[in-house]
Amino acid sequence: MVDNEKQASGGLVWVAKFADGSSKQLEPEPRCICVGLIMGCRTSICNFAGDVWKLGASDPRKVVHCMKVGLALTVVSLFYYMRPLYDGVGGNAMWAVMTVVVVFEFTVGATLSKGINRGIGTLLAGSLAIGVHFVASHSGDKGEPIVLAGSLFLLGSAATFSRFIPWVKRRYDYGVLIFILTYSLVSVSGYRIEKLTELALQRLSTVGIGGAICVIISVLLYPIWAGDDLHRLIPANIEKLAASLEECVLQFFNDAQDDDHRKASRIDGYKCVLNSKTTEESLANFARWEPAHGPFSFKHPWKQYLKIGTLSRYCAYCIEALNGCINSGIQAPESLRQQLRSVCANLGICFSEVLRELAASLKTMSKSSNIRFLVHDMNNAVEELQNSLKYLPETMHENAVTIIEALPVVSAAALLIEIAARIEAVVLAVDELAELAGFKDEEGDQKHQEEEHAKEMKALQQV
Amino acid sequence: MVDNEKQASGGLVWVAKFADGSSKQLEPEPRCICVGLIMGCRTSICNFAGDVWKLGASDPRKVVHCMKVGLALTVVSLFYYMRPLYDGVGGNAMWAVMTVVVVFEFTVGATLSKGINRGIGTLLAGSLAIGVHFVASHSGDKGEPIVLAGSLFLLGSAATFSRFIPWVKRRYDYGVLIFILTYSLVSVSGYRIEKLTELALQRLSTVGIGGAICVIISVLLYPIWAGDDLHRLIPANIEKLAASLEECVLQFFNDAQDDDHRKASRIDGYKCVLNSKTTEESLANFARWEPAHGPFSFKHPWKQYLKIGTLSRYCAYCIEALNGCINSGIQAPESLRQQLRSVCANLGICFSEVLRELAASLKTMSKSSNIRFLVHDMNNAVEELQNSLKYLPETMHENAVTIIEALPVVSAAALLIEIAARIEAVVLAVDELAELAGFKDEEGDQKHQEEEHAKEMKALQQV
Repeated sequence: MVDNEKQASGGLVWVAKFADGSSKQLEPEPRCICVGLIMGCRTSICNFAGDVWKLGASDPRKVVHCMKVGLALTVVSLFYYMRPLYDGVGGNAMWAVMTVVVVFEFTVGATLSKGINRGIGTLLAGSLAIGVHFVASHSGDKGEPIVLAGSLFLLGSAATFSRFIPWVKRRYDYGVLIFILTYSLVSVSGYRIEKLTELALQRLSTVGIGGAICVIISVLLYPIWAGDDLHRLIPANIEKLAASLEECVLQFFNDAQDDDHRKASRIDGYKCVLNSKTTEESLANFARWEPAHGPFSFKHPWKQYLKIGTLSRYCAYCIEALNGCINSGIQAPESLRQQLRSVCANLGICFSEVLRELAASLKTMSKSSNIRFLVHDMNNAVEELQNSLKYLPETMHENAVTIIEALPVVSAAALLIEIAARIEAVVLAVDELAELAGFKDEEGDQKHQEEEHAKEMKALQQV
Repeated sequence: MVDNEKQASGGLVWVAKFADGSSKQLEPEPRCICVGLIMGCRTSICNFAGDVWKLGASDPRKVVHCMKVGLALTVVSLFYYMRPLYDGVGGNAMWAVMTVVVVFEFTVGATLSKGINRGIGTLLAGSLAIGVHFVASHSGDKGEPIVLAGSLFLLGSAATFSRFIPWVKRRYDYGVLIFILTYSLVSVSGYRIEKLTELALQRLSTVGIGGAICVIISVLLYPIWAGDDLHRLIPANIEKLAASLEECVLQFFNDAQDDDHRKASRIDGYKCVLNSKTTEESLANFARWEPAHGPFSFKHPWKQYLKIGTLSRYCAYCIEALNGCINSGIQAPESLRQQLRSVCANLGICFSEVLRELAASLKTMSKSSNIRFLVHDMNNAVEELQNSLKYLPETMHENAVTIIEALPVVSAAALLIEIAARIEAVVLAVDELAELAGFKDEEGDQKHQEEEHAKEMKALQQV
């Protein structure tokens, strides 16, 4: 009987097992090794292909983006291939290609931000460098390198330092990098000024062509807006909180019964929210560069989305602590759980209703007429919980439950009350956003529809 | 009586106020406006200069980094200025300058990562492009642009897509960007192959010169190691947690008495930890590229630092919830606070002792002999708290305290118990790191010192 085992190293080893239980390792034949290697490669290639396929299927916009980059590169290269520049890669064509490669980003906002930064950085550095060159060329043979190298050292250091200033880093980091790059390149060049000006203009125009191709393809072909992403991310996160809260409450007050795996994945939704700060900030940063598109004006209050994000994160921190209660290992006594089960379940439902209403209001960009009732219900549910808690000492006494045993239940209740307060803060922030961004009035809409309907009925009656 | 008021626009308006209460706005004289503008500019320039000075003073390494960048730029420009390249900026000199500008980063790890990525990306793309050029040049006049443009589209798209794969994005993002850039540049060039190979070699050598200048200056002149930064950040965060916890417990169980501002800033320390994930991950990512330096070998287990960071963050989430209890607005009754004050204060001290010991152990890279006693003390303090809690119902009954009033105290106690469990998880992770990184043994060291001392004494006696 010949059996194969996988070694830790991933190679194949052939072992002959005999009927008496003994076994003997067979010397590997070269053909076997080859087959093993090929099989190993095939498996890892298949795995890799599967991962890549999943990545593309999970967000087809990524595939679209890649095609757009390929298209932009082809367009810019054909543009120059049509009238071949036999002065070679060093010619100005390369600046257009380079701009396309470096500037084309996933979202329109990022592309615009980089393109504008690149343009302005090049312009500023070019003008400054020509000025310094003029001074240097009038400083004599010995003075020239000193002026050039000295100015390069000073400007390079100062510009690098400016990249540490938070607001520069946030919005103009790439512009400063391009400033340093352009200034250094012009400094190194040994041209006379007349030629330098000509060169600078040529370079600006090629950078402009590259940038224009990027922006046109980015905006016109299936544009991917950072603002849209942010506008989808915030309600998605709020919905994740809703699902986590629902599941947390259910799991804490009931015994786990059905599919645990599904539950765990629903509970873990809040973990995405814990670490979404960086994503939110970069999206908001890019969204500010984007022109008006869809329902968003140029001055859309993206900062307010960050505020909502931060407040949602505060909810998530509390859910984390609540989850800690669930996983603390101390199973709360059935009597206490029974007493609080219905009120807490009710509170959990109220939470998720408020959160889902907020998410819907954000998604549709309409003021919710329901939200104040839902918040009212939530506050009532909190009061109910507080009332039920009043009878807890009695129940504990009757069932001989110590306070240590009751601790998880009591602290879970306290956290639920705290979460209610934090959800109200999110509600207020969404209200503010509704005011700032001029969300449409759902009630007004309904009235409007009713009026329209009445008019139609009248018209029909007249006919 | 002439009075000046500041308008919202920031300009100055002169208003004459008369004794009867009436006032008249004076027409601004041009000189006044000028003075106002100059004063305004001076103030904002002074503010800006102050901010910049603070930024530099807070981390002088930033200033050092800027000088290093300036120096690298000057060196590379002088290198080429000495033998002027009158074929201009388009010549190969620009690749060395460009490499310096783009590759020189704050930490050695980031510089090495970018430099190596740039080198390998250029090499791979160059070889591939020469191969494709060879195929294209044998495809006839009509086939050539099709092969070139087609390959550019396919490779550009595929390479862009690969940047979405998480592990590529994490470590090789810049290399792939350079791959696309180099491939496109060679595709656009209309050179024959012999000349292309020569060009490619020249370019590689200039990129090498630029990269070498960066790496040499970055490593030899006041090197800033990402590993060092990570190795400082993790214990600093743990110390912040210790300070926050100490202050939280004090503030909750005592009435605020002394300087509130100082306390608030100590409490808020944990907030840095909540959002440090991105920083930690990027530092660990760069640290992996760094050669052995100081006490760190090339294979230092940087990943374990991330694990410690994550577990510290879990503590911070709980502290956030605890802080929520403090700020909930419900002042817990004095009787309950008095009952738990001493045990909770003791627990708070135990927390901060354990955390500070962990931080010290991480900083000095030595195994702590005390830590197991401190953890033992902490667990005892938790038990004491649980014992004190047992008498809480009685106290509540005696002082007619409802459970709603007791809620903040009880949930704070539960959170403190949860925090103890999470701190133990951090202790275990630090232990693991000590094993993986071979921290020196404090006890062993003491023994060794004692033996040395005994030998010296013997030697002295013999003399």
